Amino acid sequence: MSTVFRVGLLGHGTVGAAFDELLAARAPHVEALTGLRPEVTGVLTRSRGDFEEILAGSDLVVEVIGGLDPARDYVLRAMRAHKHVVTANKQLLSHHGEELWAAAREHGVQLRFEAAVAGVVPVIRVLQESLAAAHIDRIHGIVNGTTNYILSEMARTGASYADALADAQRLGYAEADPTDDVNGRDAAAKMAIIARLAFSTPVHIDQVTSEGIEQITADDMAYARELGLGLKLIGTAERVEGGLSVRVHPAFLYAGHPLASVSGPFNAVTVESEAITEVTMSGPGAGGPQTASAVLGDVISAMIPPASTPETTASLALVDDVESAFYLYLEVADRPGVLAQVAELLGMQGASIKSVVQKGLGDNARLVMVVHPLLESRFYAAVELISRLDFVRSRPRAIRVIEEQFG
Amino acid sequence: MSTVFRVGLLGHGTVGAAFDELLAARAPHVEALTGLRPEVTGVLTRSRGDFEEILAGSDLVVEVIGGLDPARDYVLRAMRAHKHVVTANKQLLSHHGEELWAAAREHGVQLRFEAAVAGVVPVIRVLQESLAAAHIDRIHGIVNGTTNYILSEMARTGASYADALADAQRLGYAEADPTDDVNGRDAAAKMAIIARLAFSTPVHIDQVTSEGIEQITADDMAYARELGLGLKLIGTAERVEGGLSVRVHPAFLYAGHPLASVSGPFNAVTVESEAITEVTMSGPGAGGPQTASAVLGDVISAMIPPASTPETTASLALVDDVESAFYLYLEVADRPGVLAQVAELLGMQGASIKSVVQKGLGDNARLVMVVHPLLESRFYAAVELISRLDFVRSRPRAIRVIEEQFG
Repeated sequence: MSTVFRVGLLGHGTVGAAFDELLAARAPHVEALTGLRPEVTGVLTRSRGDFEEILAGSDLVVEVIGGLDPARDYVLRAMRAHKHVVTANKQLLSHHGEELWAAAREHGVQLRFEAAVAGVVPVIRVLQESLAAAHIDRIHGIVNGTTNYILSEMARTGASYADALADAQRLGYAEADPTDDVNGRDAAAKMAIIARLAFSTPVHIDQVTSEGIEQITADDMAYARELGLGLKLIGTAERVEGGLSVRVHPAFLYAGHPLASVSGPFNAVTVESEAITEVTMSGPGAGGPQTASAVLGDVISAMIPPASTPETTASLALVDDVESAFYLYLEVADRPGVLAQVAELLGMQGASIKSVVQKGLGDNARLVMVVHPLLESRFYAAVELISRLDFVRSRPRAIRVIEEQFG
Repeated sequence: MSTVFRVGLLGHGTVGAAFDELLAARAPHVEALTGLRPEVTGVLTRSRGDFEEILAGSDLVVEVIGGLDPARDYVLRAMRAHKHVVTANKQLLSHHGEELWAAAREHGVQLRFEAAVAGVVPVIRVLQESLAAAHIDRIHGIVNGTTNYILSEMARTGASYADALADAQRLGYAEADPTDDVNGRDAAAKMAIIARLAFSTPVHIDQVTSEGIEQITADDMAYARELGLGLKLIGTAERVEGGLSVRVHPAFLYAGHPLASVSGPFNAVTVESEAITEVTMSGPGAGGPQTASAVLGDVISAMIPPASTPETTASLALVDDVESAFYLYLEVADRPGVLAQVAELLGMQGASIKSVVQKGLGDNARLVMVVHPLLESRFYAAVELISRLDFVRSRPRAIRVIEEQFG
């Protein structure tokens, strides 16, 4: 008989519902990892559930209500009742973090909040654990997906701010009221939390200066491109003469900056330290399933305080022959029908050509192509046959191609 | 009086010496975080130290000797003596991981190994903790800095493989004997460890297929660029029909892939999962201080098994006026001397121009420039004066520019 780890769930909106579903789906895996079977044993929404009852029946409370009240009161009461708390609430932590962390220390419970900043991008855990001893000089972050989507679209299409915002709203990347996203205050809340962890100094959201992206024009984007610059809404937390600066504002980045290539609704954070140069993390910054995944990671960590030693909970067979797309480089005689014969041999193995470049070179030609994914054994079988064609002048060269999975 | 946390250090080469130095420098900070003062209480090298004595005087052992023997024996004996172990040894874990993890479980100690894979890039912690419950579909990694440097140079300069390798050796990015790097076996060891964690399935290095980069030509790079592709040595671990595939080979990436922009000696890992799309982490993959920083992160985690609640160990002042580079956009009358007057006002505040674009537009002109970093208050003071010049036709537009810090 397995022991149940009881999770009380406060809030059942997008994130709460996604967490509820994810926990049920992954419970067997979590049980294999931890020896405990996590279960949502109570749910509080505006219309159902009783907080005291849920609290009494929980080992840990997940708070995904959002906002300051009643979230603050619930989180404090849960910790006083010696329950661990996992929260996704950036407003709560950027306003009342010191009070909440003090309560966690006082009552000997864990207060985890990976999902409050940059969704599933593990910036909180990395700052609190991997880089706990690093002397951090500076952090730059793209921590608001809505504005990053809008700016990416302005850069890509030349659209105005108003048009890109309307587009983002239509696609669900921006809310009907986008004020807190576009004026930088959402990013400011996240930067307050990041700065707090990176520099061990209390930072309240009201101490974070911010400018939004409402004034950016298509002209700015066009000129900047000529100067080799791309525009992002950047949160910064850095040591400066006299102390610490925490701020959010639009900023141009040169193409070589690790955040320059972060496009669309993604988030990313770069941590700079003289000793380690820089570490960058990126991924989806929002979305129900993504945020729920960050919450579940925190719940598991609270279930197994010491680091887990890897368990063998699966026994997958190791497979050698897999599907790949390929680049194929052929030196051939420059005569008619060459491409057709090559394509035919590829086609017999199920390989189809995605793109091709052919170049004459005296009476030799080079035929370079990319083929869509197929089993490697089949591709190599085709290449073996191709290599025996009389017009092929040297050993074919094949290199795998990895395609973009998402976006 | 503070309590000392005793660290036995096995190995004092590049990483060991860097760790020794880093621990001494960061001990006060670690003590503020954990309440314990870490100290290296014994060092074992070929010429000095006695293993049994060091073991008896340690709470935790750091193994940075490398190789299989005697590292395996030392690590097993340390765990049997109920000491936590932190290791940077990818060979050891990719050959004997199952035996070592079983010993850690049996003796109730922690065995941590962030530094064994991708240096300070926190891939191990993220797989073991943040994504512990994620259903991972695929991992792609650039986990060998030497080959990534060589391929980046071939792409950037058009150099041959042999020339780029010689260059890497001259600059210290490749060893005198680069065999294990360029043939993919170093990456294979790291992918075995990554696959083990991501898929909870035992993976021995001998089960990882690998191809190196020795056969790549400058021609391949040139043609690939025409097709929009960049070449990397990619480690892959993915669920496939029939089980799991773990492999290392050169592969082309389209420009939009999150690993495509990872250049030079950096490492990066992308974790793909249907629920979360993808998370990417990147940073320096090797180097004494970087690897030492990863080791220290593990040591601290072993010191404080439950997640740390943030302590206020610093009290930095929050600063508002900071230095920034700026983009400045001016609409001006198209007449002589305009740029000179603008430059003079900027110069009076200490701003110097980095690049400038001027374009006529009827009798108006647009003057767009980037200025080197200066205090924001001084820049805005200059802009205020510029806005009053009689040839300035509309309100100047200023946006901050973030420069690349490293590389």
